Amino acid sequence: MPDMLVPFGDDIAAVAVGDGEVAVLKTDMLVGKTDVPLKMTLWQAARKAIVMNVSDFASKGVQPAAALVALGLHKKLTQKDIEEIADGLNAGAREYGAFVVGGDTGEASDLIISVSLFGTARKKALMLRSGAKAGDVLAVTGFFGKSAAGLRLLLDERCSVSEDVRRALIDAVLMPKAQLAVGLALASLGVVSASIDSSDGLAWSLHELAKMNGVGFVVDNIPIADEVRRFAKDNSVDALELALYGGEEYELVVTLKAEAFAFAKATVEAVGGCLLPIGKATCEKGMYLDVCGKRQLIEARGWEHFKSQL
Amino acid sequence: MPDMLVPFGDDIAAVAVGDGEVAVLKTDMLVGKTDVPLKMTLWQAARKAIVMNVSDFASKGVQPAAALVALGLHKKLTQKDIEEIADGLNAGAREYGAFVVGGDTGEASDLIISVSLFGTARKKALMLRSGAKAGDVLAVTGFFGKSAAGLRLLLDERCSVSEDVRRALIDAVLMPKAQLAVGLALASLGVVSASIDSSDGLAWSLHELAKMNGVGFVVDNIPIADEVRRFAKDNSVDALELALYGGEEYELVVTLKAEAFAFAKATVEAVGGCLLPIGKATCEKGMYLDVCGKRQLIEARGWEHFKSQL
Repeated sequence: MPDMLVPFGDDIAAVAVGDGEVAVLKTDMLVGKTDVPLKMTLWQAARKAIVMNVSDFASKGVQPAAALVALGLHKKLTQKDIEEIADGLNAGAREYGAFVVGGDTGEASDLIISVSLFGTARKKALMLRSGAKAGDVLAVTGFFGKSAAGLRLLLDERCSVSEDVRRALIDAVLMPKAQLAVGLALASLGVVSASIDSSDGLAWSLHELAKMNGVGFVVDNIPIADEVRRFAKDNSVDALELALYGGEEYELVVTLKAEAFAFAKATVEAVGGCLLPIGKATCEKGMYLDVCGKRQLIEARGWEHFKSQL
Repeated sequence: MPDMLVPFGDDIAAVAVGDGEVAVLKTDMLVGKTDVPLKMTLWQAARKAIVMNVSDFASKGVQPAAALVALGLHKKLTQKDIEEIADGLNAGAREYGAFVVGGDTGEASDLIISVSLFGTARKKALMLRSGAKAGDVLAVTGFFGKSAAGLRLLLDERCSVSEDVRRALIDAVLMPKAQLAVGLALASLGVVSASIDSSDGLAWSLHELAKMNGVGFVVDNIPIADEVRRFAKDNSVDALELALYGGEEYELVVTLKAEAFAFAKATVEAVGGCLLPIGKATCEKGMYLDVCGKRQLIEARGWEHFKSQL
């Protein structure tokens, strides 16, 4: 499309609807085989398909208004199964203030839930992937690693952990949350220079942001969830690995001017979220984690649909 | 959604974007197993996935602006295959003045091409499924049966027919056309009382229109394509059956006031289309075909994805 308002490769597409307003569009497909762990119910899978899309709207600071859903259904599914899917879609949409307004169904071998979201926004308020400058603070909206640890718990029965930790980790997988309120609050300030969600993993998102902005990042603090530290200790796995390379987490990863950080943090906290500084953007291209005087490379790998559940 | 501008069950969804304008949204999914005959190329399948959606926009009189595409791809597909799909999507969109602006890809067992279309329109100009009144003329934008006959030719090698007829029928299956120019021309007049496309078959569309409007239809003329008559004669099948119950055809089926018909017909012809009167809406609920003084019931059956290719 000529004169695209949002460059190809960002999380959403936008089309002008006049007077500085844009229609914001997004589609993301959930496929049973690669996106739905065995212990996830159909209701949870359907809700997750909505959350995946809402998270991209959150990262751009856009309120979703309407969802369309194309369903590919295996012929063995019962009417009750399909009602469960419909209920999950509706629950996900209502949780974030949107409505399911239409869709399509057909037969398929996999469970396919293809969600399209629509909303409108002021063009100027969109938080795009590009805009970060060297010196900007790098910040995230939560703690990492729970989904990756939870998925290991679901897939590997040898993992052991206390019951409260187990519940928190599995909940992260089955009932992911999108940071919509936080994204909207940040967009209202106009101080975010670049934004992305962490659905493919924190490391992957950092590399995407770096690539789009021609900068590097030095990270001095990876917020690892307490439950992940405990899971990692009990099962002799690397908590940092889970937090950096896990994916299927829906936090926001943003950059902003250092002088705006305190105000942004307070605004995010006012809507019940948190904004944690984790490093800064650098002129030097490269992605490093500096902890206790030791520097290590952050690799460009993360959640891969084709491999993660093999 | 409260105060839905277009009732659930119509071909598109609409959300107000201010000042009498609406955002028009549609999603329709093509699944390899049920929607793609074996002899259809990936390019053709991708183009068809766009055309299916454009046809619904055509039936509402809305110009599509942007398409999003979620692709489910079998892991055996090569990069060349995927480029062929991308080219077909782009060709379909450009054929109707739209652009592919984004999407998503993942692995799936079937070929899945889930297209979402977006456009804007004046709320008042939308041609909805409901609005037909008893006495309205029933009209269609073309001749029927070619896709159904073409599909039989593709699936059953015993069918015989002359080479020119074969080419026309198979072309109808592999390269379907949406009646967008005709739909836009009709919408500009504001005289259409109800509109639907014939993608599930002419009979099915008539029953849908009747149900939405609380009317019946008496049809006195089914426009059967010449090639379908010749195919039917050579293969001892019923041409009327193919035209009424075939489906996968993308003509428009509309109702309008009798006094507006001549002007509407001239307007449609001015954009290279045709508008053929085939009957009228009646108070009496029921669906009949009156030909040569004989009355027969038009049944509520048509194209069914789950059965048609078994």
